[in-house]
Amino acid sequence: MKTHLECLPCFLRQALGAARFVTDDEARQAEILRQVLRAAAEMDLETPPPVMGGKIHRALRETTGNPDPYAEAKRRFTKLALELLPEARKRVRAADDPWEAAVRIAGAANVIDFAIRGAPGEESVRHLVEGFAEMPFHGDPAALREAVENAERILLLADNAGEIVFDRLLLEQMPADRVTIAVKGGPVINDATMEDARAAGLTERFEVIDDGSDTPGRALETCSPEFRRRFEEADLILAKGQANYESLSDTARPVFFLLKIKCPVVAADTGLPMGTLALLQAPSGARRKTREPAAMSRAAQ
Amino acid sequence: MKTHLECLPCFLRQALGAARFVTDDEARQAEILRQVLRAAAEMDLETPPPVMGGKIHRALRETTGNPDPYAEAKRRFTKLALELLPEARKRVRAADDPWEAAVRIAGAANVIDFAIRGAPGEESVRHLVEGFAEMPFHGDPAALREAVENAERILLLADNAGEIVFDRLLLEQMPADRVTIAVKGGPVINDATMEDARAAGLTERFEVIDDGSDTPGRALETCSPEFRRRFEEADLILAKGQANYESLSDTARPVFFLLKIKCPVVAADTGLPMGTLALLQAPSGARRKTREPAAMSRAAQ
Repeated sequence: MKTHLECLPCFLRQALGAARFVTDDEARQAEILRQVLRAAAEMDLETPPPVMGGKIHRALRETTGNPDPYAEAKRRFTKLALELLPEARKRVRAADDPWEAAVRIAGAANVIDFAIRGAPGEESVRHLVEGFAEMPFHGDPAALREAVENAERILLLADNAGEIVFDRLLLEQMPADRVTIAVKGGPVINDATMEDARAAGLTERFEVIDDGSDTPGRALETCSPEFRRRFEEADLILAKGQANYESLSDTARPVFFLLKIKCPVVAADTGLPMGTLALLQAPSGARRKTREPAAMSRAAQ
Repeated sequence: MKTHLECLPCFLRQALGAARFVTDDEARQAEILRQVLRAAAEMDLETPPPVMGGKIHRALRETTGNPDPYAEAKRRFTKLALELLPEARKRVRAADDPWEAAVRIAGAANVIDFAIRGAPGEESVRHLVEGFAEMPFHGDPAALREAVENAERILLLADNAGEIVFDRLLLEQMPADRVTIAVKGGPVINDATMEDARAAGLTERFEVIDDGSDTPGRALETCSPEFRRRFEEADLILAKGQANYESLSDTARPVFFLLKIKCPVVAADTGLPMGTLALLQAPSGARRKTREPAAMSRAAQ
C-alpha cells in the first residue's frame, strides 16, 4: 500500500504523541517534529507508510538519546499478557472451534499497539480475553487452518510485544518444527524484538529470527537479505498487524494478514470498517500462486 | 497566542482539506502539502498559527494558479446570509435584549468558516438564525455595550464572508459614524475582502478599510502601516473569529473577541469548551488600559 495524502497529517500526529511519550522536554519534542516535517516533505509517496514510521522513531531515539524508549512499556504489556494467558488458553480450549478462537484472540491482541493512537489501556487487553468472541471479525479461519496443514515452511511476521504472547495460542496449534517467527532487528515503538520473543516464551518452542530492520512492518527493502530469503522460501506467511499489511498488501507471496483495522486509510483499502479484526489473504485474484487456490480464496471473501 | 505543537498536524490536515477543496489533481495536492511541510519545518513557533494559515493558502493559490479559490463559496454564503438576514433581524428586534441577541447571532455566524473543519453546511447557517439563543455562550454582552457607548473610534476586525452579513445586526445598534470595519487586503480562505463587504451591504453604511494582508487574522507584522495606525488609534476593537483571537490574544489594546471555539488548542487557551460562543476581553489583568476598567472587566469573567 502506498502512502496516501491522509497519512501526512497522521505522521505528524503520531510523531507528536510519540515525542510526548518519550520526553517532557518541549524543545526536543519540537525538534523531533521538525525532523519529521523535513523527512515527510521529501518522502516518496510510493513507499508504504511504515517507512516514515521508521524515520519518526529513529528521530525520536536520536534526539532523546534513548535507544529503546518503549522498553518498559513492552515489559509491562508482556507481563500483563503472560498473566492473562492461562485464562485465554482455557477459553480457547473450551471454544467450539479452538482454532477460530485462537485466530480471533491473536487478532484482538493487535490492540497492544503504541503506534497509531498512543498507549493502549491495560483494560483493553483484559477485555480482549473476555470479549474476543463478540468483536467484529472478517475472514475465514478455516482457510488459514487448511493452508497451515498444507505448508512446510510457515513464517509468522510478529507485531507487538505482549501481542506475541497471545499469538502463542495460535502457534501452539501449528506443527512447531515447521514454524519460524520473525521479530524486529532493532527496537521501534513497541514492536517485538528477540528480547520480547524470549520474554514471551516463544524462543524455547519455536525458531525465532530477526528481520534486520528497525522500520515497523516488513517493507522488504528495509529488511536483511537473510530475512528476505526466508520470506521468499516460506510457503505460508502469517503477517500480524497494520504495518505488515501496509508494507506487504501488494505482495505476490502467499500471505494471510491478521490485524485490527485502526485507521481510515486501511479501512478504505480493505473495504472494512474501523475496528474490525480482519483475516485477509494475499495475493488476490490472478496473482494468486498458492497450492490450494480454491481453499485459500475463502479467507478473502 | 503562539503556535502549539498540536497545531503542526492540524496545519497538514487543514492544508489537505483545502487542497482537495480547490483541486482534484492529486499531484498538485501533494505539491501543496510538500510546500506546507517545508514551511512548517522552518517556522518560528512563537508566531501565531494563522501566519502558517497564510502560507498554506498562498501555496494553494500559487500551485493551482487560482487567485481566489473560495470566491464562489464566498458569494454563495453571502447570498444565503442575505436571504436569512430579515428573519434574523426580526428575531433580534423581538428579543428581550436585542443587543445581547445580536452579539449571540454575530458569534454564532462565525460557523461560516472554511479554515478549520472545511466547508460548513448551509443548514448550520439556517440553524444559527433559529437556534442562536440556545447555543452555549460565555461572556458579558452588557460590558461590550458599555464599551461601545464610551468609545469614539470603534474598529471591527471582520472575519468571514457571509458572517459579516450577520455582523450588521450588531453594527446597526452602534453609532455608524464611529465605526470602521477592517477586511482582508487580499483573498485568503473565505475571509471577507472589500468585495465581500460590498456584497454584504456594509460599505454603504460604514467606513470599510482593508488591512493590507492576505494572512488570516491580524498578526500585526503582516498588516499594512495604515491598518496598524488605525488599530493603535481605536479605543475599542471588536475582533471576530478564532484567527483574530490567535493573532491578538496577547495584545495590550482594548479588544473584545467574539468567536466560536473550534479547536482544542484555543479551548485550552481560553479555558472554554469546544463549540462555545465566546465574548472575551483583552488585555486582561494589570495590562488593562481602557477608560472603564470596572465595566470592561465583566466580559472576561
